[in-house]
Amino acid sequence: MAEPELTNHGSETPVEPGDPSDNDARETHFHLGAGEVEAIIDALESGRDQEVRQLVAPLHFADAADLVERLSTEQRRELLETASDILDPDFFTELDVTVREEVVEIVGLDAVAEVIAELETDDAIGIVEELDDHDQRQVLDAIPAADRALIEEGLAYPEYSAGRMMQRDVMTVPQFWSVGETIDFMRDIAEQDEWSLPDAFYDIIVVDPRHVPVGTIALSVLLRHKRPTPVRDIMHERMKLIPASMDQEDVAFLFRQRDLVSAPVVRDDGRLVGVITIDDVVDVIDEEAEDDILRLGGVKEDDLYSATLDTTKSRFSWLFLNLLTAILASLVIGMFQGEIEQVVALAVLMPIVASMGGNAGTQTLTVAVRALATKELTANNAMRQIWKELLVGGINGVVFAVVMGVVAWLWFSSPLLGVVIGLAMIANLIVAGLAGATIPIALERAGVDPAVSSSVFLTTVTDVVGFLVFLGLGGWLLM
Amino acid sequence: MAEPELTNHGSETPVEPGDPSDNDARETHFHLGAGEVEAIIDALESGRDQEVRQLVAPLHFADAADLVERLSTEQRRELLETASDILDPDFFTELDVTVREEVVEIVGLDAVAEVIAELETDDAIGIVEELDDHDQRQVLDAIPAADRALIEEGLAYPEYSAGRMMQRDVMTVPQFWSVGETIDFMRDIAEQDEWSLPDAFYDIIVVDPRHVPVGTIALSVLLRHKRPTPVRDIMHERMKLIPASMDQEDVAFLFRQRDLVSAPVVRDDGRLVGVITIDDVVDVIDEEAEDDILRLGGVKEDDLYSATLDTTKSRFSWLFLNLLTAILASLVIGMFQGEIEQVVALAVLMPIVASMGGNAGTQTLTVAVRALATKELTANNAMRQIWKELLVGGINGVVFAVVMGVVAWLWFSSPLLGVVIGLAMIANLIVAGLAGATIPIALERAGVDPAVSSSVFLTTVTDVVGFLVFLGLGGWLLM
Repeated sequence: MAEPELTNHGSETPVEPGDPSDNDARETHFHLGAGEVEAIIDALESGRDQEVRQLVAPLHFADAADLVERLSTEQRRELLETASDILDPDFFTELDVTVREEVVEIVGLDAVAEVIAELETDDAIGIVEELDDHDQRQVLDAIPAADRALIEEGLAYPEYSAGRMMQRDVMTVPQFWSVGETIDFMRDIAEQDEWSLPDAFYDIIVVDPRHVPVGTIALSVLLRHKRPTPVRDIMHERMKLIPASMDQEDVAFLFRQRDLVSAPVVRDDGRLVGVITIDDVVDVIDEEAEDDILRLGGVKEDDLYSATLDTTKSRFSWLFLNLLTAILASLVIGMFQGEIEQVVALAVLMPIVASMGGNAGTQTLTVAVRALATKELTANNAMRQIWKELLVGGINGVVFAVVMGVVAWLWFSSPLLGVVIGLAMIANLIVAGLAGATIPIALERAGVDPAVSSSVFLTTVTDVVGFLVFLGLGGWLLM
Repeated sequence: MAEPELTNHGSETPVEPGDPSDNDARETHFHLGAGEVEAIIDALESGRDQEVRQLVAPLHFADAADLVERLSTEQRRELLETASDILDPDFFTELDVTVREEVVEIVGLDAVAEVIAELETDDAIGIVEELDDHDQRQVLDAIPAADRALIEEGLAYPEYSAGRMMQRDVMTVPQFWSVGETIDFMRDIAEQDEWSLPDAFYDIIVVDPRHVPVGTIALSVLLRHKRPTPVRDIMHERMKLIPASMDQEDVAFLFRQRDLVSAPVVRDDGRLVGVITIDDVVDVIDEEAEDDILRLGGVKEDDLYSATLDTTKSRFSWLFLNLLTAILASLVIGMFQGEIEQVVALAVLMPIVASMGGNAGTQTLTVAVRALATKELTANNAMRQIWKELLVGGINGVVFAVVMGVVAWLWFSSPLLGVVIGLAMIANLIVAGLAGATIPIALERAGVDPAVSSSVFLTTVTDVVGFLVFLGLGGWLLM
């Protein structure tokens, strides 16, 4: 039964199942290897244009985007001048926003318009929305009227809304059709309009005469039923409808919570306007997680590809805010100059209390920010969590008070200094637990993104309390 | 044409398209509102069991899991004793691991075995793998042999591998079949085995006689072709095959990069063993992002639902490590006790330099850790990024040197003190940029997760350099 040609099919697949343990080989199959990029850079820099084109031609659009991202600005320009005509237009959609701006500048708006005309609506909108107003107008004017209308409709929805994420091409059927009619209809469309490209869809939406969705049918369900079965008998009526104005974060939450693969998007009057599919949602999930990680780290946005000066500027404001809190902490220390002059050990040990408070508070804060993002921390359990964090801070405070108390005692041969740092440690870790839990909750209630600003408030609290309690107690007990 | 009954269908849908702007109303429709939880808690605590059962019965399994998570330990026990029989078994799969352990203890292993027998293989494995060895054995012995065999096969694959994520039920057809035969076959199966549940699948896998995949066909493609079309003519041959031993992180990367919805999983000999679908991948993406966020914040795992003492213990080791680096920084300060006694302003200002270095370094580190996770930071652009971060640190260093220099000069009426803090600021921000970029890259190359340990190394560097340069320069220039 073994047909030799089948083996060929098998070995054409991009992953070699034979060597899953060979990490390097596997990597190369999954995405662009460092070696391949080196080869292309080498060909680029030696001006071997034909070789560049040969190397770039077989790349999947996702790999092509990776390649362009990894090049330096000059190399990017050269590559696009040499080979932009052979890149799959979809590579545009996979580019980082900063890199895409650069690419738009290099290839020009006419080329961008050509690319956009070839993309699906949601991808096209994703690119057009990032252009400035003037460029947007110019690109829209250069594409066919039908595409333009769809894109402009999409742009009319608020940024980060379901309306911007959705695909406009939807497979709908009236509820009085049968399974057989539905399948025949799809075959007819496919024949008439050469609609044979893999426009991925997973559900058929059953609509009433006003185009209001009344149910959905997964393709895998449709295929299990006999031709005469009416679609209304097999449709899923308790589907989730997504208002076009819903925030993308809520859309992602819903998809995740309900394990959805696609969902109909409706206007305010209930009529169907599009469909959101899981691949768009995965992008949003990625973005949201990335935003949280970056904001907690004090970075506004992924600036890996930004120019040095842009990165410097964007990071400045966060550092400036932190400078102010650091100066505030210094003012607290300044109140105790007399004490420090007399007991210099206070100056030596004081950063320890503040730093432990900052770290303990950051642990609590991270858990709280994450739990708020996933809607696990709610009004129902907020008080319980705050109380728990207070306890955790208290217990660890006592443990570290003993450890650090003994260290300080031995180091400076002063048991009383050990008592001072121990008490300060307990106080600051309790405060850290309390602040780490309450600050994000309070910010969220106030409508401020807790990932952005929690940590600067937290550090202020733990620094000020840390220095104040330690130096205050030190002045009182040691002098 | 308007049929009144249709309007009913419309209003039965969980989202009211009419009030998308009404945030509270919308929230209630998407997930459990705080009010609903309050009502259930109230009924639970007043012992109104019938009311509890009425409130819980209509909940979607994801909401039921949310409910159980938000209750306190005592409330959880009461709820499960009152209503565990009416909860959809799938609610088990949605529970946080810590909460699930508690639930397993409450309902007992026999009840768990019953639940597992009803779940799909991948979900069942997800629950069984978290049990300890003894409980695992007991649960497996209590379920039907056929289910047990599938679960045990799954457990034989390494943790966090594709083998653990995959679904075992796969729709396969031989390559000599036609579209019509394929559809008829699905209808027959559906009739014979009552296989009418929404076992979601999106692709049909075409296999050779050895059960090696030779192509995939999206259902939406299958439906567009006439019955006599041979499946081998419409199958997608350049599919991605996933080795069963592949790490889940690599699986997620592949799905994201190629916008996949499902992919066949194969053994080492190339034979098909299962399919991974996007919903499992979304969970992995969530987990990975969560892990990165938590680790950067110095937390090992999401401890929102852990008992106070467990949380305290799990956070201890990170704090202890930070205590050591804080003591190291204090040792550096200790070298300059004489200088501090004479110029106490040094003690007042010294935390500023260290803190600015720590914050600037954290910004760089966050971008680098994230870019390593998304494979955007590679051997091709590592040197360019390090150089850029050095420049960013240098430029911001100069700016903050001027700002802080003037502040210090005015505060302590000493221009020379301004010069000292300015120079120290420049030095520490350059070091912070360098360390923030190189530490994660070096850890990644050494095979250590950069998200876990980067920040402790970074703080050590910025603290030590900050104190050393500032106090060293101060001692040299001011005395």
